[in-house]
Amino acid sequence: MRVVLLSGGTGGAKLAHGFQQVLPAGALDVIVNVGDDLELFGLHVSPDLDSVLYTLAGLVDPVRGWGVAGDTDRALTMLERYGEETWFWIGDADLGTLVRRTAQLHRGASLTQVTADMAAALGIPSHILPPTDDRLRTRVLTDDGDLEFQRYFVERGQRDEVRGISFEGAAEARPTAAVLEALRNAELVVIGPSNPIVSIEPTLATPGLREAVATASGRKIGVSPIVAGRALKGPTDRMLASLGHEVSALGVARLYSGLLDQYVLDEADADLAPGVAGLGMQPLVAQTVMKTDADRAALARFLIDAASG
Amino acid sequence: MRVVLLSGGTGGAKLAHGFQQVLPAGALDVIVNVGDDLELFGLHVSPDLDSVLYTLAGLVDPVRGWGVAGDTDRALTMLERYGEETWFWIGDADLGTLVRRTAQLHRGASLTQVTADMAAALGIPSHILPPTDDRLRTRVLTDDGDLEFQRYFVERGQRDEVRGISFEGAAEARPTAAVLEALRNAELVVIGPSNPIVSIEPTLATPGLREAVATASGRKIGVSPIVAGRALKGPTDRMLASLGHEVSALGVARLYSGLLDQYVLDEADADLAPGVAGLGMQPLVAQTVMKTDADRAALARFLIDAASG
Repeated sequence: MRVVLLSGGTGGAKLAHGFQQVLPAGALDVIVNVGDDLELFGLHVSPDLDSVLYTLAGLVDPVRGWGVAGDTDRALTMLERYGEETWFWIGDADLGTLVRRTAQLHRGASLTQVTADMAAALGIPSHILPPTDDRLRTRVLTDDGDLEFQRYFVERGQRDEVRGISFEGAAEARPTAAVLEALRNAELVVIGPSNPIVSIEPTLATPGLREAVATASGRKIGVSPIVAGRALKGPTDRMLASLGHEVSALGVARLYSGLLDQYVLDEADADLAPGVAGLGMQPLVAQTVMKTDADRAALARFLIDAASG
Repeated sequence: MRVVLLSGGTGGAKLAHGFQQVLPAGALDVIVNVGDDLELFGLHVSPDLDSVLYTLAGLVDPVRGWGVAGDTDRALTMLERYGEETWFWIGDADLGTLVRRTAQLHRGASLTQVTADMAAALGIPSHILPPTDDRLRTRVLTDDGDLEFQRYFVERGQRDEVRGISFEGAAEARPTAAVLEALRNAELVVIGPSNPIVSIEPTLATPGLREAVATASGRKIGVSPIVAGRALKGPTDRMLASLGHEVSALGVARLYSGLLDQYVLDEADADLAPGVAGLGMQPLVAQTVMKTDADRAALARFLIDAASG
């Protein structure tokens, strides 16, 4: 079965790892949010691409869920001494990734090519795809102004009330041929348990991609990032509330109504199944909290079985 | 006393450290070779500037004489996995320097400004100056072709016979105002114990700089990089031989004839004093091998005394 997973950096990366465990090599395409990308010290940083890359390569720091396990920060310490802003933590091994990506982009490679080369170099049997090779950046409107996503997320520690979200460059961005082909060929399209507003929406906002998902012939299933009214990680719950959405798995399901065939609720939210059905999606209930590699594989198998049923 | 030192990366850096120990803060300007500069992974590498920077900041690896003591290579290991060439070793802390320099250059700073900012950030009381902010690159003609300096020096381990040396960009390079001013104000100009052909000549080949040294009103003293017919470090001896020069302190002195007032021979080469005198320079004899910080300070004091005499 060919599977496409739309993913952000943490929950989505774990589910990608689950699929990679149970699918044959090459059968998984992960379309990863690039709205969080930023430039630091002249280097192109793609936090979500890197989280997926490190997770699928078995290099990720298991506690943080991002960065390389055991990484050090000698370079960052020097950069700080020289007066660079260091609110965004970059480990030394991670810096190798940023330097390589930036060098390859300057040499004329696309982000798609660079990412594919890196994945191959790290022995990853799955395809990791940015939705677009063009610049697309999530901006967060707060009472202190319109912020670059990582300024809101990392530098200011998600403390601002979110008044609005916009995607700079989205109108001009073009989806890549690789992403369109992956969606066309997919027998299963999964929207992972990622923040719907800032991890999934930037991808769907890429012109043509929402339609490509909606019209994909494969089964389309979403997995709730909200369990028992709370996000497992990150500011999804507060962001939903700030923007006037219901803070529940159902509130997230509503954002995907008309796009998906089935929607997976955590066992803790089984009572929301009728609400999901009311949105025109078949509700499914599973253990969605992925604490172990086996949890990840089990959720992936559950989704494959659901799509086959 | 205001002192200007022309330096390469190792012997010159040690002598710079000697001067820094004995002079008041701000009294030393070190003009450092940039002919060895190169681009790696899109980053601007200035090996000699960095050796002087790290030496004067007390960060240098004392065994290698370059790089940061105790540095690790996590980033380089990743870059190697991604397929980058890694024949030039870059430590993680060192990579912080390269990233900062490249970022500042892209932001519009000159190499002179970037270097001054870095030196200040590392608490260095001396001025570290590139001779030019323009591109000037030493090339080494070998039987296998015309090589970028570090390809000859590091990648091929100095194994090639050197058939000729050229300085790409030298004709168009402009000396910086800071270097010209330093030479004008110097009471002592020292050509350090560095390779005359590839560490000192690129600086002197910068249009106007040989004349600025020759016409400087301060005392001009050279220190031999050759002791008892051998270079203390690097390929100076073999390079002199390949290019038809005498491999001795006298052979090096001959390259500076007409430029210097005095020339320092190591105690092991005291017998060459008449030859130096015959070139029109006053021969001086000192202990020039700098094994300890005290050796460095002693040689600096010897030069200051000679210039005062």
